[in-house]
Amino acid sequence: MKYSDNYTAMDRELLMQKVQMQMSERRFKHVLGVEETAIALAEKYGASPEKASIAALTHDYAKERSDEEFQLVIRRDGFDLALLKWNNAIWHGIVGADFVQRELGIDDEEILNAIALHTTGAAEMSLLAKIIYVADFIEPGRDFPGVNEAREIALVNLDDAVAYETKHTLTYLIEQGKPIYPKTIETYNKWVAKHI
Amino acid sequence: MKYSDNYTAMDRELLMQKVQMQMSERRFKHVLGVEETAIALAEKYGASPEKASIAALTHDYAKERSDEEFQLVIRRDGFDLALLKWNNAIWHGIVGADFVQRELGIDDEEILNAIALHTTGAAEMSLLAKIIYVADFIEPGRDFPGVNEAREIALVNLDDAVAYETKHTLTYLIEQGKPIYPKTIETYNKWVAKHI
Repeated sequence: MKYSDNYTAMDRELLMQKVQMQMSERRFKHVLGVEETAIALAEKYGASPEKASIAALTHDYAKERSDEEFQLVIRRDGFDLALLKWNNAIWHGIVGADFVQRELGIDDEEILNAIALHTTGAAEMSLLAKIIYVADFIEPGRDFPGVNEAREIALVNLDDAVAYETKHTLTYLIEQGKPIYPKTIETYNKWVAKHI
Repeated sequence: MKYSDNYTAMDRELLMQKVQMQMSERRFKHVLGVEETAIALAEKYGASPEKASIAALTHDYAKERSDEEFQLVIRRDGFDLALLKWNNAIWHGIVGADFVQRELGIDDEEILNAIALHTTGAAEMSLLAKIIYVADFIEPGRDFPGVNEAREIALVNLDDAVAYETKHTLTYLIEQGKPIYPKTIETYNKWVAKHI
């Protein structure tokens, strides 16, 4: 990635430090893997590598906050109260973007949206949102049946990679009998079933 | 099933004739299988066998109507217009109950609700709705991998049978990349994931 006046190597260093303070070493390694992958996808598909770096570095910024803190923010900041029924897996993206904005001063709507959607996807996703969603799934540290197929697809067609990931995630959730956040079905209906 | 003054053997005969006129021989045979199963489940789980008979006989009443007729009724009778994006698989239950009420004069809310929910299920289902949902899945004419397991579960615990069917149906839809109606996820979250 080439840096610019808007996002220098020093900006990235400072952001990395702020992120690292929020999480375990293991999670921070994952974050760096997502960043590397997201920058590569941005360069391939014509998105901003700088935004990809920022969104990737911050996508799990709030993941280690307590349930109580998420619940407080959901009530305080006007989120849909139906979110209270859900859990960290959903909150750290949708509500996590709010932490990134308030605490890191990142106001770019495209970046915040990509953070918000990184776990569930959505029917409507920007190029950057697709990149973060896919990079989170295929970064080098990931190791599960299907990850190599997902990596290969991501090299060919980003929308197909969104579809593959969504189908894989839903299948896993259903096999495990885990709850499915409704937005995930919107993502599935759009990108897998191509249902208008 | 014992008949009563409210639902005589002749009432059932007349209803069967009206239903039979609406569908292929093959579908009518399915309907009779659902009725037999629904009555047995009603007797086992303490629902009204008469209501089970009526709901089962009429559950697919509208299945062979044209898309155009469903679309007209959706617009005319105040259904959620988002239904227009869907298809016969969804319409014949949710909108089909409307045909049963108007054309057959059946006004029992529990029966109409069981017809409406028989394809998608719902988070909240009456005993009768569960019986029709499950009977449609396990009636003697059904033959697919898992149907015998579903039959065995239905003999033990009706809620578990609702869960099994929902999980099986969702897995099938996702394997096939077919669209998923959002209410099906509400059914899954309640009965499979036990998510409040």
